[in-house]
Amino acid sequence: MDVLSDKNYIPQVAIDCVIFGYENRQLKVLLSKLAFKGNFYALHSGFIKQEEDLDEAAKRILEDRTGFQDIYLEQFKVFGRADNKRKQFLDALIQSNYSEDRKFLTETNNSNAYAWFTKRFISIGYYALVDMKRVSPKLTQFDVSIDWCPIQEVPELIMHYDEVFQEALAALRTDIDHKFNAFNLLPEKFTMKEVQQIYETIFEKEFTRSNFQKKILDMDVLERLEKRLTGAKNKAPYLYRLK
Amino acid sequence: MDVLSDKNYIPQVAIDCVIFGYENRQLKVLLSKLAFKGNFYALHSGFIKQEEDLDEAAKRILEDRTGFQDIYLEQFKVFGRADNKRKQFLDALIQSNYSEDRKFLTETNNSNAYAWFTKRFISIGYYALVDMKRVSPKLTQFDVSIDWCPIQEVPELIMHYDEVFQEALAALRTDIDHKFNAFNLLPEKFTMKEVQQIYETIFEKEFTRSNFQKKILDMDVLERLEKRLTGAKNKAPYLYRLK
Repeated sequence: MDVLSDKNYIPQVAIDCVIFGYENRQLKVLLSKLAFKGNFYALHSGFIKQEEDLDEAAKRILEDRTGFQDIYLEQFKVFGRADNKRKQFLDALIQSNYSEDRKFLTETNNSNAYAWFTKRFISIGYYALVDMKRVSPKLTQFDVSIDWCPIQEVPELIMHYDEVFQEALAALRTDIDHKFNAFNLLPEKFTMKEVQQIYETIFEKEFTRSNFQKKILDMDVLERLEKRLTGAKNKAPYLYRLK
Repeated sequence: MDVLSDKNYIPQVAIDCVIFGYENRQLKVLLSKLAFKGNFYALHSGFIKQEEDLDEAAKRILEDRTGFQDIYLEQFKVFGRADNKRKQFLDALIQSNYSEDRKFLTETNNSNAYAWFTKRFISIGYYALVDMKRVSPKLTQFDVSIDWCPIQEVPELIMHYDEVFQEALAALRTDIDHKFNAFNLLPEKFTMKEVQQIYETIFEKEFTRSNFQKKILDMDVLERLEKRLTGAKNKAPYLYRLK
């Protein structure tokens, strides 16, 4: 990583990535337990290089922090309160007398790391929705562990990350209803029931079969194919694929 | 305005406001013709004060640049290409040998204005949709004129503003379809036809009456009231209001 300075990175701007994972009818979010003494849980953030486009930066940060490559990220909101929870968090961390934490801020190759980190930041939120079977997160120097946490069991997060997580979840639900962005969780051919299970998991509620089918077909994004071959021919469901 | 410096403002971050106006079945956008020699058209932008929340900054910038107060602004996208069209624009302006333009950059109360302005910027886009009858834009020192331009007749805009305008229009259309954010253009009680006229203007296409009515009623945001009193009682349309 380059030295944190105004020359290398845009100051006072961060990117926060919220990575949702889906598997077996469960929606989870990827959390980092930070490499400090204490239980500090965070999302995955980073900074924008001076010569880097914003969307490139988001992809690079996601890869730097999780090892994930070629994941579609959706920009969803900018967070810009002036209250500077980042400085509050860092000051509390330093004062709590953990020598290894002080080291982090004072012995980096940039003596101005504290000044750089504790300015007020604007953060640009991106989220992704991935198939948990297809990815495996990698640890970095910043993490004790990096784990998928069911969205119903998210612990208190540091800084402003609780708000970022909640807004990302709201954005995921709004977007899925008009952009059909669940497609990257589906195989090439799929049944309506498979689509419904993903929606029910993301919205944490059940839909009636006929209403759900009508709503999805009205979106006009699916092409109906042959029936799935099963033993009982008259009960075989139709297969669909994306237009 | 405070001196442009890293101490007063967050460097390398701008807010771009796109103000759409509706009147008499026309959708327009507010453009500033800049106070330089030549035809330079711009949206309304500004910078975030160090102690100011992001949404506050957007409201203040809109008021500073247009005089509009208490207008709801919707954040829609962040623009972050590294190509720095701002510097290209300013350099071309200075080289084009207009003495009054050089003055703008060299004789401000901040001798570092050129250095400050020509860094690479990230810009946060906000849009608003207003009833043109209820507002009247005010000139500032930056404008020769400030006018409502029909969206079909927008001239080439400076810097990255063409992209910002197009993305704002796309966001307005997406949002109106699931947030019903046209309500601030409607009187307290209104007919379905009045709603349809607004939608037809914004989408630049016609809808069939029955499909449109079904779509809007399905959004479940309207309450049906008495019929509007007219001469011909059996043809009187129902009135609606927002739930």
